[in-house]
Amino acid sequence: MNGAESLVRTLVAGGVDVCFTNPGTSEMHFVAALDRVDGMRCVLGLFEGVVTGAADGYARMADKPASTLLHLGPGLGNGLANLHNARRARSPMINIVGDHATYHHAFDAPLTADIEGIARPVSNWVRTSPSARAVAADGATAIAAAKSPPGQVATLILPANTAWDEGTGAAEVPPIPARRRVPEGAIAEAARALRSGGRTALLLTSPALREAGLTCAGRIAAASGARLLAQTSNGRMERGAGRVPVTRIPYPIDLALEMLKDLDHVVLVGAKAPVAFFAYPGKPSRLTPETCQIHVLSLPEEDTLGALEWLADEISAPPRPESLAEAWRPEAPRGALTIDSLAAAIGAQLPDQAIVIDEGISSGRDIPATTRGCPPHDWLQITGGSIGIGPPLAVGAAVACPDRKVVALQADGSAMYTLQALWTQARENLDVTTVIFANRAYECLKVELANVGALNPGPKALDMLDLGRPDLDWLSLAHGMGVEGGRATTADELNQQLAAGLAVQGPYLIEAVL
Amino acid sequence: MNGAESLVRTLVAGGVDVCFTNPGTSEMHFVAALDRVDGMRCVLGLFEGVVTGAADGYARMADKPASTLLHLGPGLGNGLANLHNARRARSPMINIVGDHATYHHAFDAPLTADIEGIARPVSNWVRTSPSARAVAADGATAIAAAKSPPGQVATLILPANTAWDEGTGAAEVPPIPARRRVPEGAIAEAARALRSGGRTALLLTSPALREAGLTCAGRIAAASGARLLAQTSNGRMERGAGRVPVTRIPYPIDLALEMLKDLDHVVLVGAKAPVAFFAYPGKPSRLTPETCQIHVLSLPEEDTLGALEWLADEISAPPRPESLAEAWRPEAPRGALTIDSLAAAIGAQLPDQAIVIDEGISSGRDIPATTRGCPPHDWLQITGGSIGIGPPLAVGAAVACPDRKVVALQADGSAMYTLQALWTQARENLDVTTVIFANRAYECLKVELANVGALNPGPKALDMLDLGRPDLDWLSLAHGMGVEGGRATTADELNQQLAAGLAVQGPYLIEAVL
Repeated sequence: MNGAESLVRTLVAGGVDVCFTNPGTSEMHFVAALDRVDGMRCVLGLFEGVVTGAADGYARMADKPASTLLHLGPGLGNGLANLHNARRARSPMINIVGDHATYHHAFDAPLTADIEGIARPVSNWVRTSPSARAVAADGATAIAAAKSPPGQVATLILPANTAWDEGTGAAEVPPIPARRRVPEGAIAEAARALRSGGRTALLLTSPALREAGLTCAGRIAAASGARLLAQTSNGRMERGAGRVPVTRIPYPIDLALEMLKDLDHVVLVGAKAPVAFFAYPGKPSRLTPETCQIHVLSLPEEDTLGALEWLADEISAPPRPESLAEAWRPEAPRGALTIDSLAAAIGAQLPDQAIVIDEGISSGRDIPATTRGCPPHDWLQITGGSIGIGPPLAVGAAVACPDRKVVALQADGSAMYTLQALWTQARENLDVTTVIFANRAYECLKVELANVGALNPGPKALDMLDLGRPDLDWLSLAHGMGVEGGRATTADELNQQLAAGLAVQGPYLIEAVL
Repeated sequence: MNGAESLVRTLVAGGVDVCFTNPGTSEMHFVAALDRVDGMRCVLGLFEGVVTGAADGYARMADKPASTLLHLGPGLGNGLANLHNARRARSPMINIVGDHATYHHAFDAPLTADIEGIARPVSNWVRTSPSARAVAADGATAIAAAKSPPGQVATLILPANTAWDEGTGAAEVPPIPARRRVPEGAIAEAARALRSGGRTALLLTSPALREAGLTCAGRIAAASGARLLAQTSNGRMERGAGRVPVTRIPYPIDLALEMLKDLDHVVLVGAKAPVAFFAYPGKPSRLTPETCQIHVLSLPEEDTLGALEWLADEISAPPRPESLAEAWRPEAPRGALTIDSLAAAIGAQLPDQAIVIDEGISSGRDIPATTRGCPPHDWLQITGGSIGIGPPLAVGAAVACPDRKVVALQADGSAMYTLQALWTQARENLDVTTVIFANRAYECLKVELANVGALNPGPKALDMLDLGRPDLDWLSLAHGMGVEGGRATTADELNQQLAAGLAVQGPYLIEAVL
């Protein structure tokens, strides 16, 4: 078998059985091998940002890596922004990037580029396979790299001749390191902080935001009175009625500073010390007060769940959390469609076990509050601040969990970056209800203008933040890619549209005109 | 004034008066400065691939650089594929990439990335400005870098505090090196090849494909009998009735090998030695026979026009070329819409002084032939092989030349990468008639499957090359972004649609269903 087939066989044998693809000439042998190897599901995206964002969404929900198939340096480049997000989400992923044949490089053909150079800023692991006989082993090593804690982006570059020359059989995946147990000193230090009498918060991120971690954190809170906080952005958060509620640090710096201003101790549970998303003149980069002590319970690559259990035992926490989110939904709103009524409408109908994709940006700010008591659901965020992740993330989550409804809360400006994902939703009949928050502006940037001290913007500046002239017609855009839906201009219409969309078994798009 | 304003003033004073933008928080001071500085036209793109491709199209037609405004590493990443094309086109361009404040980097906020690392593979010049007082001078140096022969991609990274801190006034652009005169030996060697009696070709690319260069090459051909060839891909080619015709080396390797098989000498006129676009098993990378000698008349950064004149004098060429393209148009086709009738329809109506954007890929293969005798026009190609350049290139060309009609010949699969450009065409009312070649497949890849030896593809492989299920509805997509148009399913309908589109003063999109 050729190198490409040995790679596909290695991936399938290693449990990597989904490939999000946008292939070109240099990847044709990989594509051709798909018919000779059973067990690999291939999902086509019409733009590489869709492909990499979908692999991220898949990894977050499947707890295992998908592969991607990308075409040389520019194809990887098109996927780069969502690889940046994936790396920040610590999503495991294996990118297969086709390249020119090794002997063809010296001729500097038009598509020749420094693929390793492009890959490195967004990958934890990069390798160019030197020969067809090395491809299977390199693929196996890529799987191990992707699965190594805390989850890594692995990029394997596959020169065309290593795909078509004779290869080996499938290679076995080398042993994957377990998550490291945290040092005893970390437990002791966290326990001291909790017992100190000072105001203390546990700061969580994935995987501590999954049910087991939340429960443990809730026990620690019950024993110590510690507050439970989450990072502003997290890969995956399990929440809703009956789960331990956690407060996210807000994105706006003033709200974040206010929330954290009284803290004496912050215990990091796989999380990073809280910092401002952007720097602003005259405001600090670090969000905690100077007097606040930061303690590391666990690093991202360490055994966070084990550390939480150990800490709970150490402080003799009760067997169950005290406070769980109560079942509650807002009433379905009436009247005008506003940021408030939008949030209420989502909260009124969010289905049990929904997977929420949150790229709502400014218009979505109240939805976490109106959904806190909804039936249990997952919440996936934009982790690296690179907009245009929502529609692809929805694709990947829906592929990973075909029996769950994906609800994509989607700012209009951000959706434009990767709108091609709607076509993949239609082709694969993915069960995604997308709500476009059509405020027809980069609204968050109007706030940011003032935050960075650029006061009194003139018409040219404001024009650069305005998505009107002409307005985007999201129903036309979706229809053009095979996704039907409806428009809501009032709260009542949004209620109706949500009911209609959630009843469909497949993609549906609602343009909520704000 | 702050650093951002000093940079905008430097750009405008340096003749860089168009900025294609997709800004974020870190670029807000640059945006705010636009209202305080006269003379900078700002054009918003809803995706960064639109922004960088537009700057490329602008540079090719305006013969000077535009600036772009991009948001940190991921924003640059989204623009990377078309920067790759721009670098291959040798288009001058100045990218301004906002970054976190210098002091904020250590905190590794979510959007933090290695921007220089992302920029380097697609830039000829990269600098991070260290302070607000350095920004104007760095901007001036970036202008000089962009304008340095043969035209370069310059990327200036602007940390947020260097934008908002107090800067200097505008800085003056340092002297820009002229194109180097070619060495006398190069002229002598080329002259010897032309006089050798062997079969000789001049291989041209931009700028030798502009009228002055073509005329000179035509004189040399008249004196020597040399064939005039152009690279497969060129940034800009002036062609049509009354101009010296040049044959492009075809993309399909077998046709290219056939065309070049008898040559004894190839004289490179700013061009690269002809190589296969991709490597294929059992076929050579170099397209010329082993016995063929390659001579360099001029390197890309050298004075190609001067070299052509010198060579013409050296071989005592006549004052005028012998053969010029005769005025000729095919008749308007009737009957079915096929690749042939599509080409005839374009040739029958291409306007005088049209700017043709050629991203027709497989369906566009016959259009060069049917337009060879059309009134004089410019022909802009995808130079780096990275698809998705057409719609943005049309934006940039139309901004540069508002009095000329832009005719965008556009493959459907490629158009999907950067369809957001249609919105910018609507917003700026750009005079672009786009013809989407809707074959609903990555048709070229079906050919490439066989070329690389992946024979008898199965259904899974073919499914990855198919854009159907569902079909894209290009009229809906365009309408969703404010561009109207019509659909053609027969040759007659295409004739009518072309007439309608070319009569509109503004954007129009035709879906030609093949």
